[in-house]
Amino acid sequence: MSSRMKPDFSPEERAAVYRVIRERRDVRSDFISEEIPDAVLGRILTAAHHAPSVGLMQPWDFILIRNFSIRKQIHAHAQSMKDRGDIYEGDRKALYCSLKLEGILEAPLNICITCDRSRTTGYGLGRQSDSMTDLYSAACAIQNLWLAARAESIGIGWVSILDWDRVKQLLNIPRERHIVAYLCAGFVSAFRRKPELETAGWEVRTKISNLLHFDQWENQDRQRADAILGTHDE
Amino acid sequence: MSSRMKPDFSPEERAAVYRVIRERRDVRSDFISEEIPDAVLGRILTAAHHAPSVGLMQPWDFILIRNFSIRKQIHAHAQSMKDRGDIYEGDRKALYCSLKLEGILEAPLNICITCDRSRTTGYGLGRQSDSMTDLYSAACAIQNLWLAARAESIGIGWVSILDWDRVKQLLNIPRERHIVAYLCAGFVSAFRRKPELETAGWEVRTKISNLLHFDQWENQDRQRADAILGTHDE
Repeated sequence: MSSRMKPDFSPEERAAVYRVIRERRDVRSDFISEEIPDAVLGRILTAAHHAPSVGLMQPWDFILIRNFSIRKQIHAHAQSMKDRGDIYEGDRKALYCSLKLEGILEAPLNICITCDRSRTTGYGLGRQSDSMTDLYSAACAIQNLWLAARAESIGIGWVSILDWDRVKQLLNIPRERHIVAYLCAGFVSAFRRKPELETAGWEVRTKISNLLHFDQWENQDRQRADAILGTHDE
Repeated sequence: MSSRMKPDFSPEERAAVYRVIRERRDVRSDFISEEIPDAVLGRILTAAHHAPSVGLMQPWDFILIRNFSIRKQIHAHAQSMKDRGDIYEGDRKALYCSLKLEGILEAPLNICITCDRSRTTGYGLGRQSDSMTDLYSAACAIQNLWLAARAESIGIGWVSILDWDRVKQLLNIPRERHIVAYLCAGFVSAFRRKPELETAGWEVRTKISNLLHFDQWENQDRQRADAILGTHDE
């Protein structure tokens, strides 16, 4: 048995990794219009491309949308979806209506991430038993991009209210491509301390100890969970 | 219009974020058996839990599998899937057969991540137009965990060859839960400089400039892509 390598991230480097994970936010309201320099954009796209992918499939494509008239069409579509999808009532309806879609226009850049489900890169490795793994790879790429952006003080907002068929029309995306996400990207006036949905009273953070199981599903040992999580779960 | 916040990550912190993204690996072969201390495990699980999730749904659960007899059953199942799923021929078949599944046993910990597709946290926000977003949230949590683990010098291997129904049986996971991933986790003797699949000759890194589009799908401006990507794409 070989021996364990020496830790190769310094305490400061480790702290930076945890900090970016903790301080990443889904940005809706705080974008400013300043353009993202090419060098910064290159770094965050490269971060996305360095995500894990099943069989090294790299199933993603990135459409960078700066054109304002296209973004106005996307925004109008999002607004109509929001009006149509009003399934909430009372206080929650008021909250829902207050959620902003203006990031599409206020941020200088939108990014649409697609997954090519028939891409042959990777030779299908790891996709026979679970055909969704290519989509998970694309989601991992988005998370990498999101974290890199946060380290660059760039906010990302994930718009999940769109009808992908309409987005495909507006961006001329081939029908057979699968849209995974539509993001707004831009510098911000500030990052909020807590998720906007939490501050707005939409939802609260679940305790992780409720989500831990040991060896088998039925074993939810709270004492064991507390020993692992310590003060993280407060 | 408010003004842009000052960059709040130092150059060193930013470099650490990019380093962890670049040096993360899918580990198959280099695990050592040393237990992961509770404090470290608590940190990487908390990192997973701080992932973005649609509507703050937090749809995940984590099953931590240390029990060796359960892992032996998972490993035997994986091996039978590998034997059965032998769809490759010639050199590629030899390569496929050489890919290791021993991490399930050699790493001290396996982690199964599930998605509760009917969890009411988040009140369905962002799930009406794309019902897959909860699964993407779970994939983002896995990527957070993976990066945090790398910063702790812990390797993660994603086993994507399993039949989830069989895994549910072995771990007593309720039928209606959706398994997103089965991971091996443990300290390693070393992290490889390149993905094992690349070194083994399975697949190569795609150039990102081939995957960039501007405003609409058909606009693949190579000069523009090169200006953004600079030396990242070499």
